[in-house]
Amino acid sequence: MARDHSKRTWEPPVAVAGNGLLDRRAFIRGGAAFAAAFTGYSLTGAARAEPLADAPWSREAGNLVTAYGLPSRHEAKVARTLSNPKGEPRTQHGRTPHHLLNGTFTPNALHFVISHSGNPDIDPTQHRLAIHGLVRRPLAWTLDALERYPMVSRMTFVECGGNSAPLFSPQPIQATVQALHGLASCAEYTGVRLSTLLEETGIDPGAKWLVAEGADSLALSRSVPLSKGLDDAIVALYQNGERLMPGNGYPMRLLLPGWEGNMNVKYLRRIKLVEAPAMSYYEARTYAPILPGGKAYQFYFLQEVKSFITHPSFGMAMNGPGYYEISGIAYSGNGRISKVMVTADGGKSWAQAALQEPVHSKAFTRFRAPWRWDGGPAVLQSRAWDDAGYVQPTRAQIVAHRGEVKEVPPVTAFTSQHYNGPTSWSVAAGGEVRHVYA
Amino acid sequence: MARDHSKRTWEPPVAVAGNGLLDRRAFIRGGAAFAAAFTGYSLTGAARAEPLADAPWSREAGNLVTAYGLPSRHEAKVARTLSNPKGEPRTQHGRTPHHLLNGTFTPNALHFVISHSGNPDIDPTQHRLAIHGLVRRPLAWTLDALERYPMVSRMTFVECGGNSAPLFSPQPIQATVQALHGLASCAEYTGVRLSTLLEETGIDPGAKWLVAEGADSLALSRSVPLSKGLDDAIVALYQNGERLMPGNGYPMRLLLPGWEGNMNVKYLRRIKLVEAPAMSYYEARTYAPILPGGKAYQFYFLQEVKSFITHPSFGMAMNGPGYYEISGIAYSGNGRISKVMVTADGGKSWAQAALQEPVHSKAFTRFRAPWRWDGGPAVLQSRAWDDAGYVQPTRAQIVAHRGEVKEVPPVTAFTSQHYNGPTSWSVAAGGEVRHVYA
Repeated sequence: MARDHSKRTWEPPVAVAGNGLLDRRAFIRGGAAFAAAFTGYSLTGAARAEPLADAPWSREAGNLVTAYGLPSRHEAKVARTLSNPKGEPRTQHGRTPHHLLNGTFTPNALHFVISHSGNPDIDPTQHRLAIHGLVRRPLAWTLDALERYPMVSRMTFVECGGNSAPLFSPQPIQATVQALHGLASCAEYTGVRLSTLLEETGIDPGAKWLVAEGADSLALSRSVPLSKGLDDAIVALYQNGERLMPGNGYPMRLLLPGWEGNMNVKYLRRIKLVEAPAMSYYEARTYAPILPGGKAYQFYFLQEVKSFITHPSFGMAMNGPGYYEISGIAYSGNGRISKVMVTADGGKSWAQAALQEPVHSKAFTRFRAPWRWDGGPAVLQSRAWDDAGYVQPTRAQIVAHRGEVKEVPPVTAFTSQHYNGPTSWSVAAGGEVRHVYA
Repeated sequence: MARDHSKRTWEPPVAVAGNGLLDRRAFIRGGAAFAAAFTGYSLTGAARAEPLADAPWSREAGNLVTAYGLPSRHEAKVARTLSNPKGEPRTQHGRTPHHLLNGTFTPNALHFVISHSGNPDIDPTQHRLAIHGLVRRPLAWTLDALERYPMVSRMTFVECGGNSAPLFSPQPIQATVQALHGLASCAEYTGVRLSTLLEETGIDPGAKWLVAEGADSLALSRSVPLSKGLDDAIVALYQNGERLMPGNGYPMRLLLPGWEGNMNVKYLRRIKLVEAPAMSYYEARTYAPILPGGKAYQFYFLQEVKSFITHPSFGMAMNGPGYYEISGIAYSGNGRISKVMVTADGGKSWAQAALQEPVHSKAFTRFRAPWRWDGGPAVLQSRAWDDAGYVQPTRAQIVAHRGEVKEVPPVTAFTSQHYNGPTSWSVAAGGEVRHVYA
């Protein structure tokens, strides 16, 4: 080994913003700067090592390997929260527990689901995708036929237009990041570019939009500009390596990276090329809210740049002063996240967070910032920029444009859309974390 | 829309190798070249679109959204194959079904598992990781304490040293890619660099190795050069976003990217810094096979560059002549995959495959090659290069060095190690795919 471990080459980490925020580059080359800042176990939670006793699980044979693995029974809390667990005849939501996850995407079992008429139990051998309307040659495919086509894989987030809507409340609602932001998830999708299929059908010159329809009993349909269909739209067959989950569109869905979740039509069975949008239910009603000036806010497809801190967040408690990592998720429907800034003093000073490489376009980006908490009050907030130059607006700017909710519904029942402002967590001297507006 | 859909800008795809292999760049910009080569549905499996009838699942409310999602019941075949389903007192293997997956990594439920004494049912609040031996200050951590540390996320494959061992058989064994290569998987791991923890304990100058031990009842232990521990080793806490699976080391494992799977000690409870390797069971026996010359092949840690075609592969049948995508997985413990070549004529001519971006170091890389099958006999094979300049050796070269198995055991019971040669699939005129040596 060429390295001499008896020498240290680090400099102590530099405080770069108020209330203990440290330089993000402190830990990039490994632990080099860690010991300099945190020389005692009291600052990190490490303890003096004592001889280990054999635990019960170290004294007996373990459990069977199974054909399809499930998490430890000790992780039962890592689950989606359900808005309609008995499946009453209304919409069901399952929200992603961001505060219990880490890394850069969402495992399939915990990907958010919104289901308006339940998850259809589709026989994949009977399912067909048809493309018709203003095409030269209407065509239909089985799943097996699509399997032969050129495939692409890409990480992308899908986010409900209604995600984060509780932030329209005039007072901060005390709820977890799962309750506030759990209607966004990220996965690697593999499938066939829609442009490949449209190349085969041919496109009539008059076609400007497409209407995508699902095979669920609602026959959910949305209108999509043809330009998006020819840009980066995918007919997705796989999600994180395996077939799509039943709640996420099995056996195939339309994937429109960076665009409103509801438009990524699940159980895709039909794409019709047309001249003008169909004014279907979701585009004419749910996603066309009335602005304070009386105009409908319609056909705003993009999920704009957003970020939120997942660790620490509401419901957690700090375990004494010392080193902590502030960590969260940023994403933008415009492209790549270019920068995330973090504050620990409610916006008086800011430090740049480290971004986990590689940064994918239109996908979750994990950001991390080293923090030395002194045990006193703090207000944490993140703010993200994308490579198209957009930045998260303030909450005041959004509310001024879209209006604030007057009568506060349950946290799962807000009807406002597309909140992409910041989320602030206060840390009390005792370590309790609460939701605040700052 | 700026784009004029009535004009086409493509050139027909170019045949770049024998027996129908096409230029990998044909489809990179979308479907542009697709129709040129496959003008009829007879060549792709597309059919004339007919009016869609409503299927039963389109006429009734669907299933409930659940707290932890599972695949469709129609995907029950997408499962690990188990070598010891009743958990008799011997090793259990669960193999990844590569031929039923797509994309660039393995979902947690299907990650391969080898369990020598079952998966221990560890209470994460009671588990401790201790670092001791030749350190300045022995320390121990709870899971909660580690959660406060600087984290990193990275994609990496883990592969058993015995993966692909059936290729040591003197005759090609007719078995799926799952049976032949199912002891390798890839995931995104998130955790704390081991170097960060060692910076806190300090390292005595005499330390050259570390011995890592698990909390399973076997107390599996392996010796690792300290240089690897200070390079890219991670104490992994999360796997594809959620906590490690019970079969993959819950609540923490040592991750040594690119090194023999068995060394990535699961259920990690203890790391002791020492002067010399401990000559533990697996390094002194299992992974120290005797070479034809009589010398033991010991301390060869690297999983070298490898690739195999997953689509098409043994057990599949082609559905008539026309377009197909040849697709597979390549990876190297040395770093990034730099090139994959594919042949359809048993090695007489080769075409370069497209690599799915981004190409991660020491991770699965999905390669794809467009192929126009004429319906006649073909022999498919892939060969991969890494950015350190290594290339997969031929099967003959490996067998000359390591020896061939004389008495062929069941496909799950080979004891030879570290086969990284090519895998060849023959396609018969009728479309049947079989395993051959070529």
